[in-house]
This record gives sequence, structure tokens and C-alpha cells, in this order.
Amino acid sequence: MLKVTLPWKTWPRISPHAAPGAPPGTIAPDPTAPAPVVHVLAFDSENLIEQTVEDLGAIRDLREKWSRVWVNVDGLGDADTIQTIGDIFGLHSLALEDVANTNQRSKLEEYLGHVFVIARMPHLDEEAFRTEQLSLFFGEDFVLTFQQRVGDCFEPVRKRLRGKPRERFLASDYLAYALLDAIIDSYFPALEAFTERLDTLEKKIAERPTADVIGEIFDTKHSLLGLRRAIWPMRDALNSLIRDPQPLISDTTRTYLRDCYDHAVRIIDLVETYRELSAGLMEFYQSSVSHRMNEIMKVLTIMATIFIPLTFIAGIYGMNFSAERSPWNMPELNWYWGYPFALLAMALVALGMVLYFRRKGWVG
Amino acid sequence: MLKVTLPWKTWPRISPHAAPGAPPGTIAPDPTAPAPVVHVLAFDSENLIEQTVEDLGAIRDLREKWSRVWVNVDGLGDADTIQTIGDIFGLHSLALEDVANTNQRSKLEEYLGHVFVIARMPHLDEEAFRTEQLSLFFGEDFVLTFQQRVGDCFEPVRKRLRGKPRERFLASDYLAYALLDAIIDSYFPALEAFTERLDTLEKKIAERPTADVIGEIFDTKHSLLGLRRAIWPMRDALNSLIRDPQPLISDTTRTYLRDCYDHAVRIIDLVETYRELSAGLMEFYQSSVSHRMNEIMKVLTIMATIFIPLTFIAGIYGMNFSAERSPWNMPELNWYWGYPFALLAMALVALGMVLYFRRKGWVG
Amino acid sequence: MLKVTLPWKTWPRISPHAAPGAPPGTIAPDPTAPAPVVHVLAFDSENLIEQTVEDLGAIRDLREKWSRVWVNVDGLGDADTIQTIGDIFGLHSLALEDVANTNQRSKLEEYLGHVFVIARMPHLDEEAFRTEQLSLFFGEDFVLTFQQRVGDCFEPVRKRLRGKPRERFLASDYLAYALLDAIIDSYFPALEAFTERLDTLEKKIAERPTADVIGEIFDTKHSLLGLRRAIWPMRDALNSLIRDPQPLISDTTRTYLRDCYDHAVRIIDLVETYRELSAGLMEFYQSSVSHRMNEIMKVLTIMATIFIPLTFIAGIYGMNFSAERSPWNMPELNWYWGYPFALLAMALVALGMVLYFRRKGWVG
Amino acid sequence: MLKVTLPWKTWPRISPHAAPGAPPGTIAPDPTAPAPVVHVLAFDSENLIEQTVEDLGAIRDLREKWSRVWVNVDGLGDADTIQTIGDIFGLHSLALEDVANTNQRSKLEEYLGHVFVIARMPHLDEEAFRTEQLSLFFGEDFVLTFQQRVGDCFEPVRKRLRGKPRERFLASDYLAYALLDAIIDSYFPALEAFTERLDTLEKKIAERPTADVIGEIFDTKHSLLGLRRAIWPMRDALNSLIRDPQPLISDTTRTYLRDCYDHAVRIIDLVETYRELSAGLMEFYQSSVSHRMNEIMKVLTIMATIFIPLTFIAGIYGMNFSAERSPWNMPELNWYWGYPFALLAMALVALGMVLYFRRKGWVG
Amino acid sequence: MLKVTLPWKTWPRISPHAAPGAPPGTIAPDPTAPAPVVHVLAFDSENLIEQTVEDLGAIRDLREKWSRVWVNVDGLGDADTIQTIGDIFGLHSLALEDVANTNQRSKLEEYLGHVFVIARMPHLDEEAFRTEQLSLFFGEDFVLTFQQRVGDCFEPVRKRLRGKPRERFLASDYLAYALLDAIIDSYFPALEAFTERLDTLEKKIAERPTADVIGEIFDTKHSLLGLRRAIWPMRDALNSLIRDPQPLISDTTRTYLRDCYDHAVRIIDLVETYRELSAGLMEFYQSSVSHRMNEIMKVLTIMATIFIPLTFIAGIYGMNFSAERSPWNMPELNWYWGYPFALLAMALVALGMVLYFRRKGWVG
Repeated sequence: MLKVTLPWKTWPRISPHAAPGAPPGTIAPDPTAPAPVVHVLAFDSENLIEQTVEDLGAIRDLREKWSRVWVNVDGLGDADTIQTIGDIFGLHSLALEDVANTNQRSKLEEYLGHVFVIARMPHLDEEAFRTEQLSLFFGEDFVLTFQQRVGDCFEPVRKRLRGKPRERFLASDYLAYALLDAIIDSYFPALEAFTERLDTLEKKIAERPTADVIGEIFDTKHSLLGLRRAIWPMRDALNSLIRDPQPLISDTTRTYLRDCYDHAVRIIDLVETYRELSAGLMEFYQSSVSHRMNEIMKVLTIMATIFIPLTFIAGIYGMNFSAERSPWNMPELNWYWGYPFALLAMALVALGMVLYFRRKGWVG
Repeated sequence: MLKVTLPWKTWPRISPHAAPGAPPGTIAPDPTAPAPVVHVLAFDSENLIEQTVEDLGAIRDLREKWSRVWVNVDGLGDADTIQTIGDIFGLHSLALEDVANTNQRSKLEEYLGHVFVIARMPHLDEEAFRTEQLSLFFGEDFVLTFQQRVGDCFEPVRKRLRGKPRERFLASDYLAYALLDAIIDSYFPALEAFTERLDTLEKKIAERPTADVIGEIFDTKHSLLGLRRAIWPMRDALNSLIRDPQPLISDTTRTYLRDCYDHAVRIIDLVETYRELSAGLMEFYQSSVSHRMNEIMKVLTIMATIFIPLTFIAGIYGMNFSAERSPWNMPELNWYWGYPFALLAMALVALGMVLYFRRKGWVG
Repeated sequence: MLKVTLPWKTWPRISPHAAPGAPPGTIAPDPTAPAPVVHVLAFDSENLIEQTVEDLGAIRDLREKWSRVWVNVDGLGDADTIQTIGDIFGLHSLALEDVANTNQRSKLEEYLGHVFVIARMPHLDEEAFRTEQLSLFFGEDFVLTFQQRVGDCFEPVRKRLRGKPRERFLASDYLAYALLDAIIDSYFPALEAFTERLDTLEKKIAERPTADVIGEIFDTKHSLLGLRRAIWPMRDALNSLIRDPQPLISDTTRTYLRDCYDHAVRIIDLVETYRELSAGLMEFYQSSVSHRMNEIMKVLTIMATIFIPLTFIAGIYGMNFSAERSPWNMPELNWYWGYPFALLAMALVALGMVLYFRRKGWVG
Repeated sequence: MLKVTLPWKTWPRISPHAAPGAPPGTIAPDPTAPAPVVHVLAFDSENLIEQTVEDLGAIRDLREKWSRVWVNVDGLGDADTIQTIGDIFGLHSLALEDVANTNQRSKLEEYLGHVFVIARMPHLDEEAFRTEQLSLFFGEDFVLTFQQRVGDCFEPVRKRLRGKPRERFLASDYLAYALLDAIIDSYFPALEAFTERLDTLEKKIAERPTADVIGEIFDTKHSLLGLRRAIWPMRDALNSLIRDPQPLISDTTRTYLRDCYDHAVRIIDLVETYRELSAGLMEFYQSSVSHRMNEIMKVLTIMATIFIPLTFIAGIYGMNFSAERSPWNMPELNWYWGYPFALLAMALVALGMVLYFRRKGWVG
Repeated sequence: MLKVTLPWKTWPRISPHAAPGAPPGTIAPDPTAPAPVVHVLAFDSENLIEQTVEDLGAIRDLREKWSRVWVNVDGLGDADTIQTIGDIFGLHSLALEDVANTNQRSKLEEYLGHVFVIARMPHLDEEAFRTEQLSLFFGEDFVLTFQQRVGDCFEPVRKRLRGKPRERFLASDYLAYALLDAIIDSYFPALEAFTERLDTLEKKIAERPTADVIGEIFDTKHSLLGLRRAIWPMRDALNSLIRDPQPLISDTTRTYLRDCYDHAVRIIDLVETYRELSAGLMEFYQSSVSHRMNEIMKVLTIMATIFIPLTFIAGIYGMNFSAERSPWNMPELNWYWGYPFALLAMALVALGMVLYFRRKGWVG
């Protein structure tokens, strides 16, 4: 049995979503999602503290005491947590609904006092390509990030933040950019992996095109489809961030975002190329298989075609017509050179066939 | 016989339509359509009544007494009913013509004093994907909905309307939004069903690609084509609602419609993905079938190619050349080890063939 | 021999056209076109007369006497008639050239004092889909229609015109709209016919995919290509009529044209769907044929593979090695149970093969 | 060997072009191009002279004496001639570079005092479709045309020019239009030829799909690709002529150019249609071939499948088990009705097989 | 084993890139890149010096002394060199990051005081198509070029620069244009090579479609994909240079850039054509292979089908039914003309088959 990983096994599922007809702004988290862990990073140009927050009220205090806070939530299993944090920072209820609904496409939405970005972070485990939804809010003095589970690609940003100077990070739009940039750049290792996968597939096909290659090509195509589905809308969201007039984003940050947009374009370019190549691999596989099949069929044809008349001749002289009754009944059987002649006739027929095939270019 | 459900068996039929050349505004209902059942829901911020109306004149009274009315018509079998309701609310005759003609694409049309929206509601029964036309009008103080038959996805909206507070619903554009949102969201369960269907098909192909899989893939493709045909114009209609300057729609409602539009985009995104996947399934099916066919052919080839020369040798020694007449006539027959030698020769030929095939990579 | 109707047998031919380099405005009618029959319908809000005109000068009088005239010309075989009518109504020479050249795409051209529309009327006879060119001019007080031959879809319009009230028709843009609407709507029956044709083809393929189905699918594709070629530019022409500022078209008529445009969009939508479906039918046909072929091949393979070793065994014991000369020469022949053993061996081999095939899933 | 004409054998070659890095404006004519023949047609509203010019200085005099001149150069083998004429009329050096480089795409360029148009003239000889580059300049009082070789489609224009009245031609933009129109219209006969070619191919495929049809279809596709490559940019160039504000082109000429543009659109429309049809022919060819192949395979299968068991039975009774040694050894051989029974058994098996095939629908 | 060069073996690798999350503006050169060699060409209208610079400080002096400098860096293995040169000319850090990262797409970026262009220079060695990244900066008085390795297509430009007059080159935008033009024009020889490659492939397929043709077609497709990937963004960058308002580029240079843009469009046009042709070659290959395969199968079929019944007849008369026991047992064996009759029967059957095949059109 061929094994194929259909994309919905690895892509964000359609459900859970609020039931059709539910009032807008209903936060409906996936019941199987992990419980949230809230981590706050508060800083000004001089100092920086990091702490994991159990009582959400503490966030309000931190926000007041420090000039900038970055609240990161890992795990979206609890509607109350999302709602409370939303209340603290004054987030729009439609945006909060989207935070819990983890199968969104990347997008940018602007609300009064904050910008809401949905991005998708790539994970390439052994099985297939997956993405995790990152919901990012930023306002004058805060950045919020909601992740589906623990573990992200933000460690280098945290390190730069802990170091000094951190003036640039005092602009929360710059911090938001740094996070988005880290996400975009984490697509490159995923693409490296595709390079290797396509390389391996190509070798397999050229050497011995077995049946499970079909499944692997399909898997790769599905993964690339997922990758494309993740990165295209991110490019659009970045473009909106750059182009749309938006007081929360400074011109300096726009220059950096332009660089980030550039990377997204390069990723798309590579993804489209890989898609063309994996389509080409399918074609290559089919050509290889049919080439091998043709080789096999040719051998059968030639063997059969050579031996069919020989066997017929042998059949002739295996007939039992009574030579005693009539001089016309198989007199060859009683010739002195009968058998050698028959063998010679067979050899000549075989030789004739081989020459004919060679002239036709079917042999050697 | 392969069974395929061609889309016109499940899609809205082209006919009935008014005869070519008929004056514009002719209401030509399908004679087989069910008779209309008119249901009115009238309310203000305090009270709400629901009733099924037999005498259409009563609608006029309800409209006067209550600040807001929602008139829902199930069944479009009677031209008079449509015309009368159209007269009560001052609807344009071209719009009324479209109400009766139930194979419209989704669209938005603006008339003086009311907005006219055609949407298509999904039904996924066991056989195939179907849609039902919903014609929705809304003006300052009313919402009208015309459905092809009883049964819809509006129950949750009615429940929210019966509950309190219902201030938001006093804006008829908000009620219209809530209805459209319920329709859009009812596409998600339909998509779930496709997920399962594609999953099943994929398993069938990988395990045993039988002939009726072709039919099922075609059915799925047709259904997805129908789904796409239904949802694309709805997205465009929603976009017009959001973008076009239109006094009947408030900015708050526009924000909600933007969310609804977002869902439509996600549905389109999924539909396009599923279309690509079902095209891939066809390719996968063909690869699987030809892979299995090749396996079979290979066995034939190898069996035949091995036995053909063996049978030829047996044929040789079945010839009846008279060994008595000449020492050259089949002396092997009289050798002491003749038969064992012949068997050995056969075994060697067979072994040689097998080794050749193994070296070529055709066996094991 | 497969029969296929190539589109140029049914589409408007490229020729006749004026020779390359001829001065612009040369009227070059097809010499085989029927002679023109000129029919005038003159009316005001009170009265209406219809007459067939032999002397073209009479048209000038009718135009003066009546407030509105509709001149319909059936048959374009005579350059003089076209030129004379063009002179009477002051038509542009480039437009007149296009009237005679009956393989134009639908288009809209605006000249001083008149609008020129080319539309294509569908004809679906048994053989294939054909279109006829309709050239329509309208100005302040006249509508002119040039048809390639007698017979059109305007009868219902004429009937409405003969009836009363005919106020609306006093606006010649409304009359032009009514004619275009009749043409657009006459595409629907043609589409119905395609529905049936695709339905029939689908059944044929599923039941018994014979060779002439290929030809029929190609015919259908060609016809759909022709249909698409006819309707796409009509949509564009209608769009220009609605959007472009044009004093000859009133806002009321624009609303009606919008409805007409809507129908054209629906037709295009259906045509594109049918094109996808007929492409799918081809794929379906090929899958069906290769499925059936595979079935046949499988039977051959299994028959051959089972009997090849059996025949070989029979061949062995048909050899004539002399058992008298040596105890090693075919002693089986003289065994007491030799023959039953041989038959048993054959039966076992056959059984083994069948079991092997069953285990592989190639049988039953 | 299949014969295919690859397009670069018939299309304009990439080279000769100036070496990479050469200064812009370098005139690098193909050394194998024919030597130029310069022909001047000078006229005013009253008189007209035509002469072949050897000394290029004479052109300057003619330009001064006559109100309008049309200089036509056949053959681009001499850089000096091009440069000198360029100097006389004050042409831009980048434009002159393009004149000598005869593999340009059609385009329009506007310079101070003159407009530069590159168009491609079709030649359909027996082998394949070719185009020749026409470089056309026009200014206030002159039209220049550069052709690759003698022979063009301008004869009808010259005839109209020699005749009277020639007022219209006094506007050099009108003369330029007339020349472009002659080129565009000369595509129609080329399209006619494709009609016939596709027709012939279709018949061949339906009747007997031989191998060289593949080559012919590819040739046709290549030619259509070349045709498309020639006509698309011409449409764009014409569009620029019509739309761009340009003092050298009057509104009257724009109306004529619009007609010319219209023809280009029709040609593109036909080319695209033919491309779809030739793609369809390939599919049709493959269906036909595989249909015929299947027919052949079916006969083999049925023959083989019927005779395989029969031959096996004959093989059985050809075995030499000694009936004398045992009553179990082939007693059938000594039955009274043995042989007739054997024949009957064979007949029954054959009949059974035929009935089985007929029931399966594989025969008749 | 089929040999295919996957594009990532020849295309710019994805890595090295700065680690995800690194601060923007990090210069991360490929550690394996060659060490930089800096070459300066300084000139004014009178004089010109060329020198290879070891101490980068010298560049600053040269820039001050001479009115114009062109600094060319071959080899990007050292981050310090890039940074120092960037400091001397005041380049933006994001641009410098891109210089070291040699797998950028072509692009144009405008910064205060300088324009940054990335272009890709083609290299077509025997194996495959490769490109090298050229980073070009130009400001009021300088042009900088960074190349990956020694060796470029700029020699003709240097020669023109060393000669006189060099006034035009005093505008650094003109020098930048000249360099870009040299790059664009160096694509033409690469395209020539493709012409030949496709030509060779076509011949191979038509004469003898061996298996490695598949690999070669795939290689060509990959190379064309790479070529397309290189040239498309260059066209866009050139377009930005022409269209965007930019004080550093004069109108004269814009005219030249327009010519350069034109060449890029022609290259794209050719690349797209070659892509279509190589897709066609694949189809052509498959048609040829299946045509040859069909020929072979046909011979097998005909041979087998003719001999199968003959062998059956021989088998019949090889049966050992005892004619002595019964007059019904194979009396033919004892007929006087038995054997000749049998041979005649065989000949008649064979003849019948051949006639049947000929009538079906399967033979000759």
C-alpha cells in the first residue's frame, strides 16, 4: 500500500470554529489545545525583567511600571485568558475571535490603537510540513504574541533584547518587525529541507523508480502547497504594513519591513520554483517508469517473436502423418539430412529475425 | 457501469427562465416549486412577535406597527405572492424577476431605498453538493428573505434575536449581515465533508484502485466546481457591500462584513486547495493503476520469456525425424543421457534468464 | 473513420474580406450571401405600420413621417443596399464595411449621432453550434438591424411592439436593448442543448466507451469554443454600453442593460463550466478506456501465465527420447501412474498460479 | 525519422546583434543581407514621381522639392546607407540600430519629430511560417520603410497613391496607417492556410494516424507560436499609436487605426483559437493512436486467449505416456471416439471463451 | 541510470544567509567565497588611471582627487572589505547585507544619495546555466560593482572608457547603464546556446529516442527555469529605473535604459518561447517513444496472431490418438494427401490472417 500524507493531516484543521450563526466575537478555543503559559518581558532603555505570569492582573501593573512590555502566550486552550488579556490592552473582539481560531490565513488588520497581524510559523518535522499560527498585536507601548504551543524561533530576538543597546526596541513597531523577520527567515531552513528531499527523490527515480516514489512526490507537492498557502498571504500582509498609512509604524521600520518583504518574495519565488520542479519530477518518474516498462516489453516481444516461428517448425515435424501410407506424408522425416536441415532452417529464421530487428533499431 | 453525477443533476438548472424576448421584470416561477409560506418576525427593542401570515395584507400592518420586520418566504411557487410583497416594500421589478429565477449567481444590486443580495446556501446531502438560492432585501426598516424551500441555517440568528439585548438588530443592515454570516459559515461543515471524502478516496486508491474511484473523483471535482461557482461571486458581492458607498450600511456593520468577507476568502482558499488536491488524486489514481498494471505485465513477460525457449526445446525433441534412416537424424534421442541432458539444458536456460532478469533489476 | 466537425466548418469563415491593402470602408459582401430583404417597422405612440420595402428611397419618407423607425435587413448579398441605407441614416463607412464582413467579433463602436453594435446570434442545429452576425445601429429616431439571413429571435419583441403601451419603445435605446436582450436570452436554449449532449456523452462513456465518443467530445469542445468566442466579446460590448458616457443611452435603459449584462455573465459562467466538464469528460473517457483495456490485458496475462507452464509440461512428455536405450530416458512415460501424475502436476501448477494471483489481488 | 521544423530555422535568428558591451547606436547589419535598393515616391496633390535612387544625396533634393516623400529601402546589407538616410531625416541612432537588427519584436517608439514603428510582415511559404521585419518611420513630410528584401504587400497602396484623389495621403500619418493596414490584412491569407492545414491534419488523424502526423502537428504549433509572437506586440504597438497623445497623428487617422487595431484583435483571437485547436489535435492524435493500438491488442488477446487452452489440449494428447504399461496412461488415445471427443472439447472451450468475451463486451 | 542536473546544483544556493533572528544589516559572507580583489578606475574628461588597491583607505583619496571613480570588487569573502567600502561611500547597511548574500533576485533599491541595483550575470558552461550576482551602486560621483569572482563581461565598457571622448561616462548613471547593458546583452549568447541544444535534442528524438534524452530535456527545462528566474526581476528593476522619479538618472540615460529594457523584454520573450518548445519536446519525445513502442508491439501481435493458429494445427496432428483402434481417430494421418493438406490449411489460415490485417490497415 502506498503511503501518502494528505495535507489536512498536517495543515491547520478547518474546525474548531464557532458554530455557524454564533454571534461575532465568540472566542471558541480548540478543547484539545494546551493551557496557556503567559510570559512577560518588560523593559526600558536601562533595565529589563522577564517573568512567567500566573495572575493575569499582574500584566496591568507591569504595563504601568515599565515603558514597554512584550507579553507572549504559549497555548490557546483557555478562552478566559485570551479575553482578559484582550481587555487589559483594549483589543477588538473580532481580533480575539481569530486568535483562538488557529486556522486563519496570514493577514493584517488595523484597529484603533493597535495593529493585529496573523502570521504562520513553519515547522518541518520528519513527516511533513506544518505551520503554527502566531497572532501578534502591537500598540504604542506593547507587543502581544499568541502561539499555539511552547517553542518558537524568537530566541535570537530575546537575546538581542536582553543585550544592549536596546533603544531600537523601544519602538514597539521595531520589535514587531524583528519578530516577523525571525518568522520569515525561519522559512529558509524549511526550504533547505525541500532541496534535499527533491534531490533524494530525483536520485531514486533515476536509479530505480519504485512505487513509493509516487507517494513521496505527492507528499512533497502537498507540503509545498501548504508552504505556499502559508507564505503568500504573509507577503500581502507585509505589503499592507509597508504601504498603508499607519501612525504606529515609523518610516525607519518601514525600511526594515521592506527588507523583510523582500525575503518573503524570495521565498515565494523559491516555492513556485520547487512546485514546478516537483511537477517535473512526477513527469520524470512517469517517463522513467514507462522507459523501463518499454525495455521489458521489448525483450518479451523479441524473445517471443524469434521463438514463435521456431516452435512452429518444431510443431510441424512433431506431427504424426503416416509416411508409410504416402510418399507425400512428411517425407522430410526420412531424409538423410532431415534433422540437420530442420535445425538449419530454424537457425536461419532466428538469424533473419535478429537481423530484421537490428535493422529496425530494436536490438542493441 | 461507472456512475458519475454530472453537476447539472445537482446544480441549479438553467431553466426555468422567462422565454427569450419576454418583457423585463416578468416573474416566471418554476411551476414545480413549492407554494410559498410567509413568516414574519416583527420586533422593537422591547418586544418581538413571530407569526405565519396567510393574508399578505397583514404584512403592511405589521410593518407600520413595529419598528422592524423580517419577512421570510419559504417556497417560490407563486408569482402573485412575490409581486405583492414586492409592492408592499417597493422593490424593483428586475430584482423580483431574479427572485423567481432560482439559478442566479450571487450578486449585489443597489436600488433606491433597498439593497438586493443574492446568496447561495450550501446543502451537502449524501449524493452531491447542492445550493439553494437566497434572495435577501433590506431597507431602512425591513429585511426580506426568499428561500426556495423550508429549512435553513438561520435558527441561531432567530435565537439571538428572540433573546436580549437586541439593540444591534434594530439596524437592519446588522440583521442582514448576521444572515449572510450564517450562510457563509455554513460552508465550513460542507468543506469538512470534502476533507473526509478526499481522505477516503486517497485510502482507496493507495490500497486497491478500483474502477469506481474514477467516478468518485469526478463527482468530487464536480461538487468542488459547484462549490467554487457558489462562493466566488459571494465574495465579490460581500466586497461590494464593504467598499461601495451605501447609506444603508453603517461603519460598524462594515467592520463585521469585513470579517465575513475574510471567511469567504478562507473558504475560497480551501476550495482551490481541494481542487488542486482532487486533480492530484486523479494523477495519483492513474499512477497507481499503471503501477499495478506494470506489475502484472512484468510477471507475464518474465513467465513467458522464461518458458518460451524451454517449450521450444521440448518441441525440438518432439519432432519425429527418423533416427533409423540416418545417424544425423536426432541422434540425441538415442543417447544414454539424452533426456537428462535435455532437462539440464532447459534448467540452464531458465537459470540464465532469471540471472539476466535479476541483473537488469526486473526481478526481486 | 472518426468523424469530427472542425470549427471552421461551422464558425464564421475568415474570408471573404476585402483584399489586403484595399482602401478602408470598402464594402465587400460574400458573393454567395442571399439578396437583402428590407423590412420597416415605423411607429409612434399611437400607430404602427409594417412593410417590406423594395425601393429604398421609401425608407427616407417613412423616417420623416414617423417618429421612430426600425429597419431590418435580412441578407447581405448586395453592397448597394447597405451603402444606400448607410447614406440615408448617415452611417460611418468603416461601420458599413464591418456589416458586410460577417465574421466580426461582437463589439461596440460609437460614432457621431449613432451607436454601432455587432452581436452574434446563436443557432444550434443538429450538427454543430453556429452563430450569425447581427449588426445593429441606433440613433435618436431609428434602429437598424442587419442579419445574414431570414429568421431571428425578435418575434416576441415585435409582438410587444405591436401591442400597447409602447411608450418605452419610443426611446430607440430601449428598443436596441430589447433586441440585444432577446439575443442574449436565446443563448440559454443553446446551453440546455449542451447539458443534454454532455449528459449523453457521459452515459456512453460509462457504459461502453466506443471510439466515436472521442470525435463527439471534440465536437462539443469545438462548439463550446465557438460559444465562448461569441459570448465573451458581447459581454465586453454590453459593459461598454453601460459604463461609457453616451448621450444616446438613458439611465433607465442602463439599468435594463445591467440586467442584460448580468445574463451574459451567467452564460459565460456556464460556458466556462461546460468547458471544464468537457475537458473532464475526455479525461474520463481515457480513464474508462484504459480501465477496460487493463481488464482485457489482465485476462490475457492470467490465461497465458497459467497455461504457459502447463503447455511446457505437456511438451516435455511429448519428446521422443528413446526409453529403450536408457533407463534415464523419460522413465516417467513407462510408469504405471505416469499420466495421472503428469495431469496432477499440471493441476497443482495451475492451482498455485491462481492462488498467487489471488494473493496479489489480480483475480476476483 | 520524423521531420520537424524547429522554429529557429524559420524565425528571425537571435544574431546578428552588436557584441555585448558595444556602444549604443551601433549599426551592425547581417553580413549576408542583400544590398539595399532605395526607391523614392515623391508627390503632392497634383503630381507624383517614382524613382530608384543610387546617389542618396538625391533624396535630400526630392524632400525639398516635393511636399511628401515615401522612401522605401529593400535590403539592409549596408550600414552606410542606413546611416545616411538616418542623417537626412534626423532619425535617432537607437532607432537606426534597431533597423539593422532584424529580429526585433514589433514596437512603437516616439522621438522628437518622428515616430518609429517596427512591424513584422508574414510570409507563409510551403515549409513554414516566416516573418520579415518592416521598420517604418514617419514625420511631418516623410514616410520611410526599411524591408529585409525585395517584395512586399504594399502594391495596392502604391496603386491607390498613383491614382487620384490622393489628398488623404498628404497626411503622412494616413500613409503610415495604410501601410500598417496592408501588413495586418496580409495575415488573413496566412490564417486561411492554417485553416487548411489543420483541416488536412484532422482528416489524416481520423483516417490513418501515421507517425509523421506528430511532426506536422509540431510544425503547425511552432508556426502558430511564431505567428502569435509576431502579432501580439503589433497589437500593443497599434494600441500605443491610438492611445498616446502624439501630435503627428490626427484624429481621423486614429479612427482608421482603431479599425486596424480591431483587425489585429481578430487575428489574435483566431491565432489563440488555432492554438487551442492544434493542442486538441495532438490529444486527438493520441486518442486515435491509442484507440487503434487497443484494437490491435484486443485481437491479439482474444486470439491468444482462445488458442492457448486449445493448444494445451493438443499438447496433452501429444504426450507419449505408454498406454501399454498401464491402463491409466492416456487411455483416451485408445478410445473409439477419442479424437472426435478431443476436437469437441476444443470446440466447446473455444465457444465458451467467445461467449465469455461477448458477455464482457470485448467482441463485436 | 539517467543523469539529471537539478537546478540547485547550479543555481545560487539558498544559504548562506544570516541566521533567522539575526539583527538586520549583518554582513554574512559565504566562508568559501574568494578573497576580494579591489580594482579602481578613476577618471575625468582628460585623464584616467587604473589600479588595484590593497589599502582600502586609498579609495577615499582617489575619490577626492578624481571627479569620477568606478570601484570594482571581485570576490566577496571578507565582511570587512565590504563594510569599509560601504563606509567610504555611505551605503545603507541593509544594502551591504544583500551584497554578501549572493542569492538575491535582481532588484532596484533607492537610498539617500545612491541607487542600489542587483543584477545577475549569466554563465553557460558545458554542464548547465549558472548566474553570478552583481551588486551595483551608483551615486553622484561614483559607481561600485561587487562581483562574486574574477572575470566579467565588462571588458568592452572598460575599453570604451579608456578611449576618448569619455564625456558621456562622466555621468555615473550612464556608466551604470553601460554596465547593465553589457550584462543584458551577454544573455544573448546564452540563448544561442539553447537554440543549439534544443536543435540537437530534437534531432536525437526524431532519429532515436533513447532514455537519456529525458534527462537532457529536464536539464534544459531546469536551465530555462533558472534563466527565467534571473531575467524577469531584471526587467522589473530596469522598469523601476526608467519610471520612478529619481534625481540621479538623467533623461538621456533614461532613453538608453529604455533600449536596454527593450532587450530584456526580448530575452524574456525568447525564454518563454524556449520554455514552450522544451515542453513541446517532452511531448514529442513521448509521442516518438510510444510510436516506436507501438511499432514493436504491432509486430509481436501480428507474428503471434498468425502463428498461434498454425501452431495449434501442428499440435492437433501431433496428438497420439490411436488410429488403429478406431476409424474416427485421426484418419487424416493416414490419408494419402494428409500432410500436404495440413500444410495447405496452414498456409490458407496464414494468408487469411494477413489479408484480414491488411484490410484493417495494420500491415503495410
